[in-house]
Amino acid sequence: MDQFDPTEHQHVRYNPLKDEWILVSPHRCKRPWSGQTEQPAEEQQPDLNNPLRAGAVRSNGQRNPNYTSTYVFPNDFPALLPKVPEPPPPEHPLFQAGPAKGTCRVMCFHPDSSMTLPLMSVEEILAVIEEWISQVTELGRRYTWVQVFENKGAVMGCSNPHPHCQIWASSFLPNEPRVKDRCQLDYFKKYGKSMMVEYVEKELEQKERIVLENSEWVALVPYWAAWPYETMVLPLKNKPQRMTDLNPEQKRGLAEIMKQLTTKYDNLFQCNFPYSMGWHGAPTGPSSTPGDSPHWLLHALYLPPLLRSASVKKFMVGYEMLAQPQRDLTPEQAAAKLRDCSNVHYKNKKD
Amino acid sequence: MDQFDPTEHQHVRYNPLKDEWILVSPHRCKRPWSGQTEQPAEEQQPDLNNPLRAGAVRSNGQRNPNYTSTYVFPNDFPALLPKVPEPPPPEHPLFQAGPAKGTCRVMCFHPDSSMTLPLMSVEEILAVIEEWISQVTELGRRYTWVQVFENKGAVMGCSNPHPHCQIWASSFLPNEPRVKDRCQLDYFKKYGKSMMVEYVEKELEQKERIVLENSEWVALVPYWAAWPYETMVLPLKNKPQRMTDLNPEQKRGLAEIMKQLTTKYDNLFQCNFPYSMGWHGAPTGPSSTPGDSPHWLLHALYLPPLLRSASVKKFMVGYEMLAQPQRDLTPEQAAAKLRDCSNVHYKNKKD
Ligand SMILES: O=P(O)(O)O[C@H]1O[C@H](CO)[C@@H](O)[C@H](O)[C@H]1O
Ligand SMILES: O=P(O)(O)O[C@H]1O[C@H](CO)[C@@H](O)[C@H](O)[C@H]1O
Repeated sequence: MDQFDPTEHQHVRYNPLKDEWILVSPHRCKRPWSGQTEQPAEEQQPDLNNPLRAGAVRSNGQRNPNYTSTYVFPNDFPALLPKVPEPPPPEHPLFQAGPAKGTCRVMCFHPDSSMTLPLMSVEEILAVIEEWISQVTELGRRYTWVQVFENKGAVMGCSNPHPHCQIWASSFLPNEPRVKDRCQLDYFKKYGKSMMVEYVEKELEQKERIVLENSEWVALVPYWAAWPYETMVLPLKNKPQRMTDLNPEQKRGLAEIMKQLTTKYDNLFQCNFPYSMGWHGAPTGPSSTPGDSPHWLLHALYLPPLLRSASVKKFMVGYEMLAQPQRDLTPEQAAAKLRDCSNVHYKNKKD
Repeated sequence: MDQFDPTEHQHVRYNPLKDEWILVSPHRCKRPWSGQTEQPAEEQQPDLNNPLRAGAVRSNGQRNPNYTSTYVFPNDFPALLPKVPEPPPPEHPLFQAGPAKGTCRVMCFHPDSSMTLPLMSVEEILAVIEEWISQVTELGRRYTWVQVFENKGAVMGCSNPHPHCQIWASSFLPNEPRVKDRCQLDYFKKYGKSMMVEYVEKELEQKERIVLENSEWVALVPYWAAWPYETMVLPLKNKPQRMTDLNPEQKRGLAEIMKQLTTKYDNLFQCNFPYSMGWHGAPTGPSSTPGDSPHWLLHALYLPPLLRSASVKKFMVGYEMLAQPQRDLTPEQAAAKLRDCSNVHYKNKKD
């Protein structure tokens, strides 16, 4: 039989952060597509009356200030409220409810609804990062977990095209960070080293999955990526455990790599590239202190749904929901395609 | 402060099958929706040249027989092939690839492309169940896991409206059944009883989440449901561990409850209701024998995406991907709404 070729032969890959496997079926890239297509994001025109704009009136009657940089306000329909009665203690192991307290905020990136991150200046993106850090600082004092995330594009359930993200802080540690905390701690105990610090070192040696790199950060397609063009952004120095650990050089380097990565994403299919992105770092809360979680390395995740074009996405459905995630192109192929994309945004090409 | 009311006050619920939590935020049902809407499934007209129809020619040039009941053929673009070279053994714990072998089949439910399960007769659905069992019997001899699943509707990535499901068999135990196997085994060791047998007993006592029941099966919204109208179909007698354990009464009872459940689903928003569904039972493979997995109880899962109407779905995006699933209406409210739906399909109302 032939030699194993990862770009031809199906295999499974292990995600050590989640203790899960991914099925990689690269031969399936040849499959034609006749199912549902998405409306390319570019066709959504920015609304001049967008309620998230500077000075606009929101649905609850409140008027936004004439903000000029970022702007944070409480989510008008929060999934988490700070004060609610608690459920009684469970009486049976199969019927367990627990208390959930928290707060949900919306953060606008820019006063202009037609703006997106790759089109913003490095200074403007730096302001977003500074605001993230001050939010995590404030909310992290009270809450165990502060999830900063951005749903971008209608296909990712984003109901408003104005550039914005959300911050949901909770009294409980949600599933994903709980599992990541456990897996990283197990690795740390077993090997005496932070899993993701080790991982970054190996990726820099192998160079196969790196999309972008500057003096402070690397953006790469993880070896175990599930979404077609999934990436992770990881720090190269000082082993920050939380966003609040970043120094000025790291903040500026992050603004630069975010601008370049989102530019490459938009250039990949020449569209306003949809994704959900967010930050994972060591849990916070009243008892956390800087440096208390050496098993953690702060990182951002970009989870974009598009597979073949601006209108054909990967569906994580039947097999993926009931058995395990499956991908067609390999992480190495995805990284190469992103690397090949220009660092100049297609909208700025003719300027 | 008020008394805790699960229909008003946010809380988390534990899923003992997956060792995961769900955030329930019922107060959020009041949120307006101005984001992406789906094309209601009803508007997709059945294609008289559909390649899955009896007698049609498929894209690879093969002609389907003039089948009159179910029809199974190999997937033309399989994610799993029976013979492929294996990756070399991993050299580092963070870069682990493993072998994956398997086979993918497509199974048509009915010769007619405009037919759907709720519109089929109980006899016709019984033929589907018999075919599932013979597939699991045959493939289960060789493969550790045989995933029977149906992606229904364009919104669930289904690229062909002809009534059909898929069967993906693999040499490896995928994530979802691996975790369920572990959780059920832990429970069995701790309490000396099958988790899901105990669960069904409690649900029959509480009656709050039951949608349908006959002498052989119950359909209910699990206490820990993540999708708005998620249901589970579980057997009431004989504790079958795999589909191959079902007796004639159980098969007929299953055909009846499947017809009723899918009818209620279509009636909920008066549309051809999309979902991914599939079966979970004890792992198979050469060393498995009937009765070897008393910690398992066979069950079907229906995972439908719609939230408010035929065109507004729940998005499992940013917070859900990066932190944990969140739902608006409670499982009890979802069960009551489904219970209230007629057992007569809306298309047959005026006949
Ligand atoms: O094989 P199909 O129906 O064309 O493909 C569909 O189901 C598969 C299994 O859930 C998914 O991997 C695909 O993303 C989806 O489009
Ligand atoms: O709050 P939004 O942006 O209206 O809502 C969106 O993001 C939330 C958090 O990921 C999801 O729970 C919603 O399903 C989605 O539509």
